[in-house]
Amino acid sequence: MGTDVRTRLIRVALGDEPADSVVRGARVVNVFTREIGAADVVLAAGRIAAVGDSGEQLVGPDTEIIDAGGRFVVPGLIDPHMHLESSNITVTELARAIVPRGVLSVCEDPHEIANVLGVAGIDLLTAEAARLPLNLFLRVPGRVPAMPADRETSGHAMDLAETLAMLDRPEAVCIGGDINPALLLGADRAQLQKIEATIERDKTVGGQLPGFGGAVLDATLVAGVEDTHVAESPAEVVEQLRKGARVLLTPRIDRLPAEEWPEVVAATERLGLDTRRLVLCTDDIHPNILVSEGHLDQRVRLAIEAGFEPVTAVQMATLNAAELMRIDRHLGSVAPGRFADLVLLDNLEDFSPSMVLYRGEVVATGGSLVDEPPAADSPGWSTGTLQVALPTPEDLALRVDAPDGPVTANAVAFGAPKTMRRVQLQARGGVVGPDGSADVAAIAVLERHHGTGNIGKGFVTGLGIRGGAVASTVNHDSHNVVVVGDSHASMAAAAGAVIEAQGGYAAAVGTEVAAVVPLPIAGLLSPEPLEVVGERLAAVERVLIEELGCSIGYRPIYALNFLCLPNIPDVGFTDRGIILTETMEIIGPLAAAGA
Amino acid sequence: MGTDVRTRLIRVALGDEPADSVVRGARVVNVFTREIGAADVVLAAGRIAAVGDSGEQLVGPDTEIIDAGGRFVVPGLIDPHMHLESSNITVTELARAIVPRGVLSVCEDPHEIANVLGVAGIDLLTAEAARLPLNLFLRVPGRVPAMPADRETSGHAMDLAETLAMLDRPEAVCIGGDINPALLLGADRAQLQKIEATIERDKTVGGQLPGFGGAVLDATLVAGVEDTHVAESPAEVVEQLRKGARVLLTPRIDRLPAEEWPEVVAATERLGLDTRRLVLCTDDIHPNILVSEGHLDQRVRLAIEAGFEPVTAVQMATLNAAELMRIDRHLGSVAPGRFADLVLLDNLEDFSPSMVLYRGEVVATGGSLVDEPPAADSPGWSTGTLQVALPTPEDLALRVDAPDGPVTANAVAFGAPKTMRRVQLQARGGVVGPDGSADVAAIAVLERHHGTGNIGKGFVTGLGIRGGAVASTVNHDSHNVVVVGDSHASMAAAAGAVIEAQGGYAAAVGTEVAAVVPLPIAGLLSPEPLEVVGERLAAVERVLIEELGCSIGYRPIYALNFLCLPNIPDVGFTDRGIILTETMEIIGPLAAAGA
Repeated sequence: MGTDVRTRLIRVALGDEPADSVVRGARVVNVFTREIGAADVVLAAGRIAAVGDSGEQLVGPDTEIIDAGGRFVVPGLIDPHMHLESSNITVTELARAIVPRGVLSVCEDPHEIANVLGVAGIDLLTAEAARLPLNLFLRVPGRVPAMPADRETSGHAMDLAETLAMLDRPEAVCIGGDINPALLLGADRAQLQKIEATIERDKTVGGQLPGFGGAVLDATLVAGVEDTHVAESPAEVVEQLRKGARVLLTPRIDRLPAEEWPEVVAATERLGLDTRRLVLCTDDIHPNILVSEGHLDQRVRLAIEAGFEPVTAVQMATLNAAELMRIDRHLGSVAPGRFADLVLLDNLEDFSPSMVLYRGEVVATGGSLVDEPPAADSPGWSTGTLQVALPTPEDLALRVDAPDGPVTANAVAFGAPKTMRRVQLQARGGVVGPDGSADVAAIAVLERHHGTGNIGKGFVTGLGIRGGAVASTVNHDSHNVVVVGDSHASMAAAAGAVIEAQGGYAAAVGTEVAAVVPLPIAGLLSPEPLEVVGERLAAVERVLIEELGCSIGYRPIYALNFLCLPNIPDVGFTDRGIILTETMEIIGPLAAAGA
Repeated sequence: MGTDVRTRLIRVALGDEPADSVVRGARVVNVFTREIGAADVVLAAGRIAAVGDSGEQLVGPDTEIIDAGGRFVVPGLIDPHMHLESSNITVTELARAIVPRGVLSVCEDPHEIANVLGVAGIDLLTAEAARLPLNLFLRVPGRVPAMPADRETSGHAMDLAETLAMLDRPEAVCIGGDINPALLLGADRAQLQKIEATIERDKTVGGQLPGFGGAVLDATLVAGVEDTHVAESPAEVVEQLRKGARVLLTPRIDRLPAEEWPEVVAATERLGLDTRRLVLCTDDIHPNILVSEGHLDQRVRLAIEAGFEPVTAVQMATLNAAELMRIDRHLGSVAPGRFADLVLLDNLEDFSPSMVLYRGEVVATGGSLVDEPPAADSPGWSTGTLQVALPTPEDLALRVDAPDGPVTANAVAFGAPKTMRRVQLQARGGVVGPDGSADVAAIAVLERHHGTGNIGKGFVTGLGIRGGAVASTVNHDSHNVVVVGDSHASMAAAAGAVIEAQGGYAAAVGTEVAAVVPLPIAGLLSPEPLEVVGERLAAVERVLIEELGCSIGYRPIYALNFLCLPNIPDVGFTDRGIILTETMEIIGPLAAAGA
């Protein structure tokens, strides 16, 4: 904080100088002791100078008095793991959405924008955050791109020097241990060197270990990984805690949904587990869900509903996160010396802040920011990233030598895990068509960073899409254009819409584009208000479900985002074709003759 | 740990290579969850590769099997704050004493040896530790010397550059925030810069805040101090925890003795306090007490006896300390990736290890080291540090102009706090004598580092010494020779004995030296075995109590060590005379005429 600030805080604490402001008559949630106690919180220079009974000597003529009126005061919430790109909004819009909800610190993993724009993309986020009432920390991406170039074409790579330089930034708190833990278990030397470099810098190594237990869990932990999200079961949470991992909880539809959280609570109570290494996070939140359900504040509500003591739930979203990120000297508690990031609430269960202070300033009241944030600045290089021609239906069609007749194709079957399945299709005029009636859609991934013209073509089953197509540039991890449909004409229309918008989501009914979410910043983010983005995304999802009959009834776009990701077992799909997760082998779209 | 070690650990965890050794059939104390569970602990490259059910694939022909036979396995204990110099032994002897007791990591504050020998004295300790089965961490002294040179003559100073260089060492985990918190509260710029430099390096700021509460506590915390020892009462422990301080507990005769620990337990239970920031330490342990009572193992026993759950007591001596020191990735738990520092015990309450492993090797069994450690090496410059002539009785006498008659003197009255008291004495032949019958002893502090010939002379009351004298070179913080007695001849004899020994303790009965503890290394440490040092110290204390009638019945030498320290209120005594703690004013030995 610097010696000047420290000197001022000392003098205010001692009563030698008046405070900048005092939050009077609060019920302070003490995340160190788990108590709730009446206290005044004395603020100066954006920090907390004292907590206790504020005598009159602390109050000068210019000291602002904030009457807490017996409301709860909790530390600003800290989200230790999130992807802004999943919300498809700018940092400015994120701040507008989450600061009034009491979320004042986030650790952003900019893996997606880095794959498109490299370090410049990350700089775009941090520069924007510097103007906002939000602490933006970085989880430095550990592997950009995630795949070798001959398996998938990425927009940018981050080399070792760039990675180390980013780790040296003060806002960098951890590295993404690996996007694909299997690579780490192969003791990839370059990756282990990044881990050593991180630990030497006293920063932490983040992980992602769903389904990891026993030997594989041990091996990943000795590789250096310190935290994990998201466990598949309460038993996995317990095992990971026992092994010393910090366990991040966020509800997923397919893994440890909120309905199963009471079992986590029951396990901690039955076994008498110390919860200090249990942490809440948001990971991926779609814009429409962010509007309707909230952010980390919703995780706190869920944790309390599941049966955690309210103060324990607050610990899981403040002190425990700060300890994980090794920033607990500065954030995560209402205590002398910490930043004056404070949330005032009528009750903890609703977690509906009536006032939010960031570094001692009142920045939100009654669910809205006090001051409209400055408009986000999106330079031209960040908004014109699609280098790909508008495709014709023919461009997207898979051709075979024999003009007509039956063909056996390799299709990606949607599910957890995604699997590869043989499907029977018909060639007509030399083109292998999808078969909507058998739930076999065509898929194409169009390389969009370098104008290579690469198009991976194949088939996908398990989506139930009929009568149209859906296209997207949010397509982990390289974010090439993906389009899925039951006719090449529909696919060309949907893909054309997202290319014309320089990125986004689009749904076509027949060859009519029925809904679009333009995401021109890196093909991932919208400059528009969250509510607009959320409504548009909801519209695309409505078309998908109601008009195209998509069988994924809840957040189908989220499923589509990860459908192609080759790092999630068993198969992925890139501009090079089908990729097997385990071996990284490329598989052609058609089964070999006689196979 | 380096990529080679990490690669080996990954391969062992996965069962691809056999382990170095396996501790089979243990009851592992899990400091993360507070559970005790049956498990095998798989070791390789000095670290823990896996914890769980060790399959046969982990065991090769060269794998050592250690049968735990259902014994408890706990992490090696970590002492986060101690002064080797208080035990008057070498690091080698410390290791011989504490490793078999299960203490495998210590954070040494080398403030004392640094005041005598500077950085070279600290290097002496760390070089010795490198050959021993002990992790020696450093608390970098924050202010050497503690007093300005015109208030007390020290052996060495450590400047800012030396302090920063030491903070950069990997074994340095924290800085001593200030030996005198009052100086910190004055916002001393140089000291605040050291604190900033420490925080920039992601290391911590240690404190010492007895009796600090309310505004003074807040002010010290905003100054950067993160931990504190030793609270004066259970209520102070609670307040310090509430404020976010990490609270170190060690029993003291005068502050929070073990008899009061049940009140701390009762407070944590009644208030439902989270104990994660409660930590055990040893601080100062005399050699004879180390032999008879133990080290951090004794603190664990005390904590359990006081009513803490045994697993909570173990947390307070392992994980909580490791988190305080920010070394919890490496030490403080039995978990994958941590150093294989393990302690096997029949039960937790006795805490009497039957086997101790350091970095995977069995280093102690049944209370003794397996291998005799290499002899400590004490170079000549470290053992000839006393530059002071043998005093005559006349040298120690306080002279006045009037040859005979009553004199009003300023005496230091022993107690907590130490106070200044006026006493009536008699001058005879121009010399003001002590008055044993009125419990007024003479005191002299002889500068011993630079041969200046400075001798501070005065009087002390409250020790009850009659018929002799006691002398010492363990005299915080500058460790000049102090001698106290009821005759100048006795004082000269006792002081002469410690000077001839190049440091130590001595007690004289009349003019006969009745007991000596030679401490030739820096005038603070003995090269002899702990037991020998302990017996000799006990002999000096016996003479003091039984033959000289010293009224401090428990560890009188410990009282003498700190009698002169000017940083402990209200007064101290240096080679310059009486020093008032608060103002640092020098007070003459005689009250001004008419005062």
